[in-house]
Amino acid sequence: MRNHGIGSWTARRARRTPDRPAVVYGHVQLTYGQLHDRTTRLAHHLRGLGVRPGDRVAYLGPNHPSFLETLFAAGHLGAVFVPLNTRLAEPELRHCLADSGASVLVHTAAFEAFAGSCDVPRRVAAGAALDERLAALPATPLDVPVTHADIAIIMYTSGTTGRAKGAVLTHGNLIWNSVNTLVDGEFSAGDVTLLSAPLFHTAALNMTCLPTVLKGGTLVLEDSFSPTRTLDLIERLRVTVMFGVPAMFQQVAAAAGFADADLSSVRMLLCGGAPVPEALIRTYQERGIGFLQGYGMTEASPGVCLLDADHALGKPGSAGLPHFFTDIRIVDPAGDDAARGELLVEGPNVMRGYWNLPEETATALQDGWFRTGDIAAADEDGYVTIVDRAKDMIISGGENIYPAEVEKALHEHPAVDDCAVIGIPDEKWGEVPRAVVVLAPGAEATAEDILVFLDGRLARYKIPKSLVFTDALPRSGAGKLLKPHIRRTYGTTS
Amino acid sequence: MRNHGIGSWTARRARRTPDRPAVVYGHVQLTYGQLHDRTTRLAHHLRGLGVRPGDRVAYLGPNHPSFLETLFAAGHLGAVFVPLNTRLAEPELRHCLADSGASVLVHTAAFEAFAGSCDVPRRVAAGAALDERLAALPATPLDVPVTHADIAIIMYTSGTTGRAKGAVLTHGNLIWNSVNTLVDGEFSAGDVTLLSAPLFHTAALNMTCLPTVLKGGTLVLEDSFSPTRTLDLIERLRVTVMFGVPAMFQQVAAAAGFADADLSSVRMLLCGGAPVPEALIRTYQERGIGFLQGYGMTEASPGVCLLDADHALGKPGSAGLPHFFTDIRIVDPAGDDAARGELLVEGPNVMRGYWNLPEETATALQDGWFRTGDIAAADEDGYVTIVDRAKDMIISGGENIYPAEVEKALHEHPAVDDCAVIGIPDEKWGEVPRAVVVLAPGAEATAEDILVFLDGRLARYKIPKSLVFTDALPRSGAGKLLKPHIRRTYGTTS
Repeated sequence: MRNHGIGSWTARRARRTPDRPAVVYGHVQLTYGQLHDRTTRLAHHLRGLGVRPGDRVAYLGPNHPSFLETLFAAGHLGAVFVPLNTRLAEPELRHCLADSGASVLVHTAAFEAFAGSCDVPRRVAAGAALDERLAALPATPLDVPVTHADIAIIMYTSGTTGRAKGAVLTHGNLIWNSVNTLVDGEFSAGDVTLLSAPLFHTAALNMTCLPTVLKGGTLVLEDSFSPTRTLDLIERLRVTVMFGVPAMFQQVAAAAGFADADLSSVRMLLCGGAPVPEALIRTYQERGIGFLQGYGMTEASPGVCLLDADHALGKPGSAGLPHFFTDIRIVDPAGDDAARGELLVEGPNVMRGYWNLPEETATALQDGWFRTGDIAAADEDGYVTIVDRAKDMIISGGENIYPAEVEKALHEHPAVDDCAVIGIPDEKWGEVPRAVVVLAPGAEATAEDILVFLDGRLARYKIPKSLVFTDALPRSGAGKLLKPHIRRTYGTTS
Repeated sequence: MRNHGIGSWTARRARRTPDRPAVVYGHVQLTYGQLHDRTTRLAHHLRGLGVRPGDRVAYLGPNHPSFLETLFAAGHLGAVFVPLNTRLAEPELRHCLADSGASVLVHTAAFEAFAGSCDVPRRVAAGAALDERLAALPATPLDVPVTHADIAIIMYTSGTTGRAKGAVLTHGNLIWNSVNTLVDGEFSAGDVTLLSAPLFHTAALNMTCLPTVLKGGTLVLEDSFSPTRTLDLIERLRVTVMFGVPAMFQQVAAAAGFADADLSSVRMLLCGGAPVPEALIRTYQERGIGFLQGYGMTEASPGVCLLDADHALGKPGSAGLPHFFTDIRIVDPAGDDAARGELLVEGPNVMRGYWNLPEETATALQDGWFRTGDIAAADEDGYVTIVDRAKDMIISGGENIYPAEVEKALHEHPAVDDCAVIGIPDEKWGEVPRAVVVLAPGAEATAEDILVFLDGRLARYKIPKSLVFTDALPRSGAGKLLKPHIRRTYGTTS
């Protein structure tokens, strides 16, 4: 094979384990041989639509086998996969499509209407009609040369500037992240991995899905999350690995059937987005199940640190230790090593840059080190704790929310004179956004008026869960919002 | 770390698992923290002896912690590790030292006399005196930049030309071979890996030792092999993985204590050098233990194919399937794909070339494909069987013997007019060499006279186990020995 990227993985797995189950999705079951066959036919179809090496192929839909088939088919062609977050509002989706310059949008049935309204040159609807079409196409692999340095995916991540940026991840980035995960985690060829967290998120895709495929395990895909269905699937399919954010594991533990469920097959829970609360760790530990907690970001493909199950209680709240092939530094503003400071990341999993944003890339990547914007401290054993964010960001249920983006949308409301968005603690989601608003002189609007205005402009999870009015917001001499001050004043949950 | 090679592995392991046991050697136990500490001090010592990036550091000795410390210390400095086969005769060792241009020879006590007689600029004797010296040196890492493209080791392998050639393996080569092994094998962080096969062989070092270190398992080093001690160690240290050639596992199964030994900890036996006989597979299968059989060569770092335990009996005698990240082709003499033909290998584990031998390199590596010289056929499932060797080679107990090299030594005996060396089947070693000799007119010599003459000129394992006289050897019109004809006539064991 001249394809050394992840697009060759279905062929490589079909070569070694053609009959092993690759994907379970409801009543659909695909072996690795079948997954490779379908992927190859889809690659022929995409090539027929004009897709050439380097072209962008976007995907919009919840978890579904066609997500994986499109990912691998794009890679098979040397094209670039652009997974879109289904939770984004339509203007946000349009930005990602336009910015990436996608020539094809593959989507599930639920996004038919949106797809029809897009000006992407070609659209492909996953489903029975496509399946029929693919059956008539050849299943002979196209031998397109792909190297580790070629771009595999562009993943959009919101930013401090208020617009989503595309993190450019090469095949080498994704492969090394999977290798890090195999080295520091404990994946096995016999794994049955439950994925009800969305694949368009970097952690579900790169920390869980791809390492499972690399080892030849089975992926159980769910297009939405339900605690009771999770328990049912674990028992019925003998699930060994599951990925989720803490809120999901909370809900599973709170579900009616939890106490009586047979969880003996589960070996490892992978968790990201926020540290797992100690009580939750204990709840699962009593059932013999450990949490592997990851800290990372889209730009690092995403694994930076990992806290293993043995240290989950001994190092509470810690992000863990750097991955085997990845290095970190903690530096002060002058760039010198410090006990507490900004966390920098270097390694073969660190992105190549932001798509078409040379200035942002130059700021983010310096001398090969990615500036995370997170403020970290390491203890005497090297365990990293994220103590603050240098970048103004809220993490709510694993989704990053950039206040700047929400503030920009709020400012578009005619009654809003000034505003600030902060994160406030939330038991279920870790944090949720709150808006603090100064009305324009003479203007009248209720909190509901303003929040409803954001509907359709922003992804639902970005819309503040509460809004408080004030007369004035504290700003620095240079006019910058004094966020710590605002958080102290308005950041209580009451 | 700017060191991305295997020389950084002790630091990376010490970062994640400082207290886990890394090496057990008799009464010596080293944690990963201690291994890193000793390695770093040794790196300082070697640097004091003048070792700079790219310099060659040779090692001569049986399995011993200092082998690993020298390997990692050389890598720490960006220097090149040259492991020497202790079974070689002194002239052969001198050739490897001179050819590699090693500036330092590290050796164990047993090789004191030989080391003293070498003209290598610097010699370091492993042992108590060195340990004392190292204790006074700093344990602060030297931050030498090393990339995957830099040379990690030069491994000498005999050749058809009659002289050992140095296979140049980069850090990337070794790392990718370890990654292939983690993907296709089942190594785990809790592994206790028994290594009584010599580390200077590529399979013990690269298929077993390095993957164990990568996962953070424990290496149990033995400087020689004893079946009864093997059983004792398995029980006492709860060994999970063991590497060996079939003859070793035969001897363990034939040992007095085998039937009663507690082998419940053993999960995986890694085997190389020759297919494992079916009876032996069954013997271990009855104890719940599977064989993972590897096919490869020094030039591929070495993994090319792997036969997993589930297919050991279903595909008897097969070399298995190509490793995940490695590709193969079977080609006819014109270079076209064929059902049966020479096996070619491509992948990130394939060597950079032969040390200082541009012509041999150009012949061996064509378009990135390594010509193994082995004749292979693949079945309908892609399983590869090695049916013949295009290169004239004998494999005896896992050691490669090139008849050309033995014939060259035989020709130096004044009574030998013509000779051929062939492999004959042997129950214990798979094959052993036999010499077929034509005496010079009027010369008189017994078989013993001639074989004793080879003593000290060749490694013991290369010296023919039997010698038969004949009046003339069949040669082609071009004067080439007709080996198939000679094998048919003289190749029976009687």
